[in-house]
Amino acid sequence: MREQASWPLDDRGAAYGDGLFETILLRDGRPLLWDEHLARLARGCHVLGIPMPAEHDLALPLAEAGSGLEVLKLTLTRGSGGRGYRPPATPEPRLRWQLASFTPAESRWRKGVRIRHCRLRLACQPVLAGIKHLNRLENVLARAEWDDDAIAEGVLSDDSGRLIEATAMNLYWLRAGRLETPSLARCGVAGTLREALISRGEIQEVEAGEEALVQADAVWLGNSVQGVWPVVRLDDVMGRALRRWTLGRQHRSFQAEAHGLLGYDYPSTY
Amino acid sequence: MREQASWPLDDRGAAYGDGLFETILLRDGRPLLWDEHLARLARGCHVLGIPMPAEHDLALPLAEAGSGLEVLKLTLTRGSGGRGYRPPATPEPRLRWQLASFTPAESRWRKGVRIRHCRLRLACQPVLAGIKHLNRLENVLARAEWDDDAIAEGVLSDDSGRLIEATAMNLYWLRAGRLETPSLARCGVAGTLREALISRGEIQEVEAGEEALVQADAVWLGNSVQGVWPVVRLDDVMGRALRRWTLGRQHRSFQAEAHGLLGYDYPSTY
Repeated sequence: MREQASWPLDDRGAAYGDGLFETILLRDGRPLLWDEHLARLARGCHVLGIPMPAEHDLALPLAEAGSGLEVLKLTLTRGSGGRGYRPPATPEPRLRWQLASFTPAESRWRKGVRIRHCRLRLACQPVLAGIKHLNRLENVLARAEWDDDAIAEGVLSDDSGRLIEATAMNLYWLRAGRLETPSLARCGVAGTLREALISRGEIQEVEAGEEALVQADAVWLGNSVQGVWPVVRLDDVMGRALRRWTLGRQHRSFQAEAHGLLGYDYPSTY
Repeated sequence: MREQASWPLDDRGAAYGDGLFETILLRDGRPLLWDEHLARLARGCHVLGIPMPAEHDLALPLAEAGSGLEVLKLTLTRGSGGRGYRPPATPEPRLRWQLASFTPAESRWRKGVRIRHCRLRLACQPVLAGIKHLNRLENVLARAEWDDDAIAEGVLSDDSGRLIEATAMNLYWLRAGRLETPSLARCGVAGTLREALISRGEIQEVEAGEEALVQADAVWLGNSVQGVWPVVRLDDVMGRALRRWTLGRQHRSFQAEAHGLLGYDYPSTY
């Protein structure tokens, strides 16, 4: 792992989570979904009132990248200064990066994954919804609910029982012939792969409760680093199976579309 | 300002706000409300699943303190490690501290302060309510709503309109002869001064909407560093006065009680 220097003790990212991050897949030094990552970072900067860095500064770590697959993590904070929570009048944002080689979990592409509902309910904060800010304790606590490696991800609902996302991935399903994903107007992180898929016009953003998953003909999780995992089993919070799915052609066509955006293999041959 | 080293780039506090902090008033190196600070930190550690440091480790920076008033900020994170949001199985927490000389705003004790309602509504996350964790973007955004130094603090309500706190202080009022403070069961930070005052049995925790402030005979803000500020004017989000108060004996008796816990002057002589 290559990375830049540390965070000063008074950095507002470390003090308050006052910042944003992006986790970007690189292939031979070329970032995937780069426009979507820049767009989400810009949205976050607008919401938090942090000046957006110049694109060439954000792209500097790309020159350090090697060949093959890597993940670049960019973290942008409001920098130091201000008085307590009060932000400085003219923030000097701080940008740090970490670069690590990466191997996707191909067997999860192929065989699908088992997931579970989380006990934790996401709080609804429309102001922060969708952006990838540094206040991620809900994700950490949700991910800490299980340590069985057979369970790949946990499904998060909001405090009204609406489906939102998984702890580090977005959620998609096929129901009555329609591809759907939860609305993220109140909470959740709008993944860049999700943005790219929605902009192609084939996925509807909907409000749906947990019954939608049980009714679905196919369920997937996806993000811009791991690609798309079909779901073969959904458990409740006690580990009891709520539904099982057999992987079929409908799983592969959605996966193929998403993987095309990331340059990943089309798993139909498996 | 004296302080310890920086945060490593992979510290989970900096990455996810995965940690806790305490801000402690010291007089001649002696911490005020130390038991309350330790108790809140222990509660936070329990909620987040971070091992509580030994008290003697937490007290080490006290040996660096000088004479007079200082503020010690202790920050405890889950340390490095884990995989993404997933916490490491055996976390090695990281403790950092900063020490700075401090002068309370005595004129605010004496003359009172003007405050305003904030536009931002706090999200309800009962799991994290009360503890002083590092996910503080709501406080930062609320404090960024105004930059008029004549306004000392902003009042935060939750997404159902219930009064909760100010951006960096707790909220108290006198209504129908009773001292009241908002319940923090759903969101907000349970200040150590608030804990100490409640344990003396004179303050009721209540659920109340914004009308409670307008009806109150006296309103105060307080925390364990600044002491207690009586409120002389409450504005709406547009800066229009909703209510004004003339400081009287009832203001001073509550202030005297709280200041007794901090070793601050009783302001009746002003």
